[in-house]
Amino acid sequence: MAAVGSPELLIVMSASATGEQVDEVVSRLAEAGADAHVSPGKDATVIGAIGERDLLAALPLEGFPGVEQVLPILKPYKLVSRELTPDSTVIDVNGRRIGDGYFGLIAGPCAVEHREQTLETARVVAAAGGTMLRGGAYKPRTSPYAFQGLGEEALAILAEARAETGLPIVTELMDPRHVEAVLDATDVIQVGARNMQNFTLLAEAGRAGKPVLLKRGISASVEELLMAAEYVVKEGNARVLLCERGIRTFERSTRFTLDIGAIPVLKLETHLPVIVDPSHAAGRRELVPPLARAAVAAGADGIIVEVHPEPEHALSDASQQIPAAEFEAFAAEIRALASLMGRTIG
Amino acid sequence: MAAVGSPELLIVMSASATGEQVDEVVSRLAEAGADAHVSPGKDATVIGAIGERDLLAALPLEGFPGVEQVLPILKPYKLVSRELTPDSTVIDVNGRRIGDGYFGLIAGPCAVEHREQTLETARVVAAAGGTMLRGGAYKPRTSPYAFQGLGEEALAILAEARAETGLPIVTELMDPRHVEAVLDATDVIQVGARNMQNFTLLAEAGRAGKPVLLKRGISASVEELLMAAEYVVKEGNARVLLCERGIRTFERSTRFTLDIGAIPVLKLETHLPVIVDPSHAAGRRELVPPLARAAVAAGADGIIVEVHPEPEHALSDASQQIPAAEFEAFAAEIRALASLMGRTIG
Amino acid sequence: MAAVGSPELLIVMSASATGEQVDEVVSRLAEAGADAHVSPGKDATVIGAIGERDLLAALPLEGFPGVEQVLPILKPYKLVSRELTPDSTVIDVNGRRIGDGYFGLIAGPCAVEHREQTLETARVVAAAGGTMLRGGAYKPRTSPYAFQGLGEEALAILAEARAETGLPIVTELMDPRHVEAVLDATDVIQVGARNMQNFTLLAEAGRAGKPVLLKRGISASVEELLMAAEYVVKEGNARVLLCERGIRTFERSTRFTLDIGAIPVLKLETHLPVIVDPSHAAGRRELVPPLARAAVAAGADGIIVEVHPEPEHALSDASQQIPAAEFEAFAAEIRALASLMGRTIG
Amino acid sequence: MAAVGSPELLIVMSASATGEQVDEVVSRLAEAGADAHVSPGKDATVIGAIGERDLLAALPLEGFPGVEQVLPILKPYKLVSRELTPDSTVIDVNGRRIGDGYFGLIAGPCAVEHREQTLETARVVAAAGGTMLRGGAYKPRTSPYAFQGLGEEALAILAEARAETGLPIVTELMDPRHVEAVLDATDVIQVGARNMQNFTLLAEAGRAGKPVLLKRGISASVEELLMAAEYVVKEGNARVLLCERGIRTFERSTRFTLDIGAIPVLKLETHLPVIVDPSHAAGRRELVPPLARAAVAAGADGIIVEVHPEPEHALSDASQQIPAAEFEAFAAEIRALASLMGRTIG
Repeated sequence: MAAVGSPELLIVMSASATGEQVDEVVSRLAEAGADAHVSPGKDATVIGAIGERDLLAALPLEGFPGVEQVLPILKPYKLVSRELTPDSTVIDVNGRRIGDGYFGLIAGPCAVEHREQTLETARVVAAAGGTMLRGGAYKPRTSPYAFQGLGEEALAILAEARAETGLPIVTELMDPRHVEAVLDATDVIQVGARNMQNFTLLAEAGRAGKPVLLKRGISASVEELLMAAEYVVKEGNARVLLCERGIRTFERSTRFTLDIGAIPVLKLETHLPVIVDPSHAAGRRELVPPLARAAVAAGADGIIVEVHPEPEHALSDASQQIPAAEFEAFAAEIRALASLMGRTIG
Repeated sequence: MAAVGSPELLIVMSASATGEQVDEVVSRLAEAGADAHVSPGKDATVIGAIGERDLLAALPLEGFPGVEQVLPILKPYKLVSRELTPDSTVIDVNGRRIGDGYFGLIAGPCAVEHREQTLETARVVAAAGGTMLRGGAYKPRTSPYAFQGLGEEALAILAEARAETGLPIVTELMDPRHVEAVLDATDVIQVGARNMQNFTLLAEAGRAGKPVLLKRGISASVEELLMAAEYVVKEGNARVLLCERGIRTFERSTRFTLDIGAIPVLKLETHLPVIVDPSHAAGRRELVPPLARAAVAAGADGIIVEVHPEPEHALSDASQQIPAAEFEAFAAEIRALASLMGRTIG
Repeated sequence: MAAVGSPELLIVMSASATGEQVDEVVSRLAEAGADAHVSPGKDATVIGAIGERDLLAALPLEGFPGVEQVLPILKPYKLVSRELTPDSTVIDVNGRRIGDGYFGLIAGPCAVEHREQTLETARVVAAAGGTMLRGGAYKPRTSPYAFQGLGEEALAILAEARAETGLPIVTELMDPRHVEAVLDATDVIQVGARNMQNFTLLAEAGRAGKPVLLKRGISASVEELLMAAEYVVKEGNARVLLCERGIRTFERSTRFTLDIGAIPVLKLETHLPVIVDPSHAAGRRELVPPLARAAVAAGADGIIVEVHPEPEHALSDASQQIPAAEFEAFAAEIRALASLMGRTIG
Repeated sequence: MAAVGSPELLIVMSASATGEQVDEVVSRLAEAGADAHVSPGKDATVIGAIGERDLLAALPLEGFPGVEQVLPILKPYKLVSRELTPDSTVIDVNGRRIGDGYFGLIAGPCAVEHREQTLETARVVAAAGGTMLRGGAYKPRTSPYAFQGLGEEALAILAEARAETGLPIVTELMDPRHVEAVLDATDVIQVGARNMQNFTLLAEAGRAGKPVLLKRGISASVEELLMAAEYVVKEGNARVLLCERGIRTFERSTRFTLDIGAIPVLKLETHLPVIVDPSHAAGRRELVPPLARAAVAAGADGIIVEVHPEPEHALSDASQQIPAAEFEAFAAEIRALASLMGRTIG
């Protein structure tokens, strides 16, 4: 059989599909500018479609009469794929680097609660050689009665922490109407797990011109995470850090199930750096160090952990924040392991 | 033992917890204005906390040293709970009613694609006795390369469909900056599954003064759905329709797993009407009628289904839309079953 | 392009696969007596394999260098598939029928606890027009400290209940060494959810010559359930009742998530009858009636429910058994709905 | 309030529970020899039950009228719990040790396919310093048409591999009727994931007098895994190796989701050694090394990996077996990491 070009899509027609139904699919492909190669058979007819990947992905062929399966041959993402960009991306934030051998150690409180708590944590993170400071100003909370963050007041505190320690800031953007305020205070825009498919927010983050830390939704597949990153990169911003933070499964002995396998899968699929949040997956602070170590050993480009001077008085995620007093020892352990894995803390 | 008031929270201290650790929990409870009743024991000490439910829910006691478990006795939601509001809510939209015996049959295309497709579907829905017309103007799509909806053009088409058929309109709000435009065109604001925990959007929807159709997130628990509704009601808008539309599980023979058990659970827990979207759960049109019937039999207050004049040419969800030509028969079957269940199509 | 026969398998080779790697796959297919049709291309080469379905299914082609995906075109099951046996199977047990319009109402206690409890329940089930009596003699329990069933004593009690009421008996087989004893007492052999992939037990059940009620495992896919049934039918026993009883998901407001969508999917895929166990899915008795009704409306061929004279004193599953006193009303409600769906209680 | 002993169970009665309903629960507790402490209140009455843990666990109080929740304070397992046996168990198999600082590196083919394949792999495992040889004689397969293992012939080949290399053997027991044959050939009895709740098999394994490698079921919770181990230990055999091998979730980019968090949770809960099977979780050989490293870093006491001289010709699990030629480098990497974690390969 002669070379026929490689199909992007295979459409399997059911055994009982009529010739007209096959023709209808073929002419729909033609409308979309795609070539169709039909292999008829006894039990099923297979149509190979060759054309522009984006156009084919958008074509709703499953709905056609007689179509049994539509099998994508190529991945639906382009800009984020390692296939198209083989070299690993290094993200440089004010001289701190993450990706391709540079390991990011991002730490800080779950939420900015008051000035002293934040500055004290920032000093501990800086002293232990951390890469960036995290801290929430706007907090998405399951309950409307829970602490929702200090908002603009928190942004000012974070700016002060940056001024004092030199640590770049990571904070979450929840509302497209906050873009300006958040951009003034932050060096990296975090898009939280609950907003991973808030597509208008992703587009805003993409247009903002600063690196984006994109957290995987608790029920998002690896492919959906990559498609969400594609939304950001499509706006012209290729500086995206992907963050695995645990998925929701039936198991309840941890808060979420850290999908450790997603790390090597993502490293194969994309050129973007992949970091891990062990705190939200663990839900209990004694589980954070083993999960953080596992992330490093599995090949992550960094971790983001919650640290608090007095976790028992924290206003959110109290049970999973590491006490600031223990952070230096934790950082040393991570550094030793990262070094064995051939990584340098950036 | 004398009556001690009924605790909202039980805090179980580990066997090895010290007296100081118990005291610390008790004084934290006192700070929050709560009474503590301590039952010390050999293997575990149990502290019962009595106070304001909202304050206790926000208290991060899991983080305290010596605390093994925090067991909530009462549910975290208030305004939406049937416990506090025993009578079922009826939502009236321009004379169409849903809830407490009134069954809503909401139908229409996944997306508004062009004028004729939408008007034709609206006429079919109206003729078959449908309650409202659904249709997406802004479409959240996994891929940035897929059809994203016609936006304001779609809103104008929906307004025309309403003018012609009298059917109230349901359309999705995706961005808080679209509130005004969407409010002009719609009678019910839909908040989609991906935005169920987009809390700034929920608050906007709550303040908008129109009924809200709130879809359950694909990995949201029933409790989280109720907490999301609590965000809306807290803004003063008690006209919320809860919508079960399938959750993400390991099973792939349907697009999502319709959580049929959530219907009777929600009917017990809340006074709000509960409707079901069988189309998104099914993912294949031949499965929509059995899932729709199951929803009615399980006690739902309505269904919302996708209907399209030519599903095979739909720009989104092509495989799961019911052909408009089959809608009348479908509606008749649903009506017969609703009637057996003691419901009237509103 | 000429007809080339319809492939059972498509093997997608990665863009970087060498000619030798393609040749190796082709020669492995030839060894297995299969024809290979190679469509080379720029981004991927696709190999279509045509041959015996069983042989191809057993071929581990994913392991070959250069292979990116193996896409099965045909389903892996044969004997149970509706494709090969279009007519629905009716299972006749001592004159009681299930399948193809005959609806089975199977009821009885979770476990046989003592003679009076069982006989009393059997009388109630018979009086309400039930089809068969269920009751566990050997109970699989998560805890070794929980009640494990009365064993042979229970089998004798079930035999007595059958003698008195004429109801055929359904009881669970847990151990291949119990086959003889269980066969003497039962009319239908139940294989429980935990043993759905206990393949030696499935083969024993297949050889025993009595109908088999096969429960879906809590994390088994619909396809795996059908493959488990294939194990039974392969031994020459085509009288298999498939039973959906809830799958394990993240949701905890019900004991399991009843996969209501599995019912219409199974009805499309297989000629075997499909029944539903609402009791184990619900976990709470007030949820059993709505789930049972949903099962009927979704097209199930029967239900199997737990009934107990005094649920609060039951030794297992106490919270989900329906009180015997309420069974008649329950049965009447199910009968009315089954009748609307065109089914007769067999 | 005076010390009242520490309750094993808390029973929360609903707000509307009557005094008689409370009394009924209390007298049921008394029947079971337990003390009840009643704390009545406005919204809920809480009953604390103090008595024998096993008896209370078996008491089906959820079924009682008026009972809203039953909250266990203590864990349901005893013999396997670290609470009762604080020192970590070391399992010695012919001089090879696993647990408490000794790391087990178990490797070998998925299935014994023929003599040379097995002996060649055994030599590679021995040369690289492996702890034991794994190899399946009886293979549980989803499809009845797939290779089911060589059975007794395989057992003889494994015995020969042990004689030549001195490596202890791990092989799976699938059927209680095979106990004798398997015991002759193996040093460690494996109970597979599909049989984790095959309780008659667990009891046989417990009575057999050899160490048991117990794999977690794909949808078993950590607690259920521990309860399954309790079944084995209850028969007098405390030499149980627990094995995490991936759970079933919605994510499909790996074959299963390795529950890396289960390792530190199990290390806290039980004194038994915890090992990890990265091969079955990964499903693709390029993912096995990162998952194996993650397991070591998370604190596992060993790993069990699949190795084959020619994976592409393997009769099962072809895509996930490591080529024998790469095993030595893999073992060296694991050894370095285990050493950093303070473990010695036993």
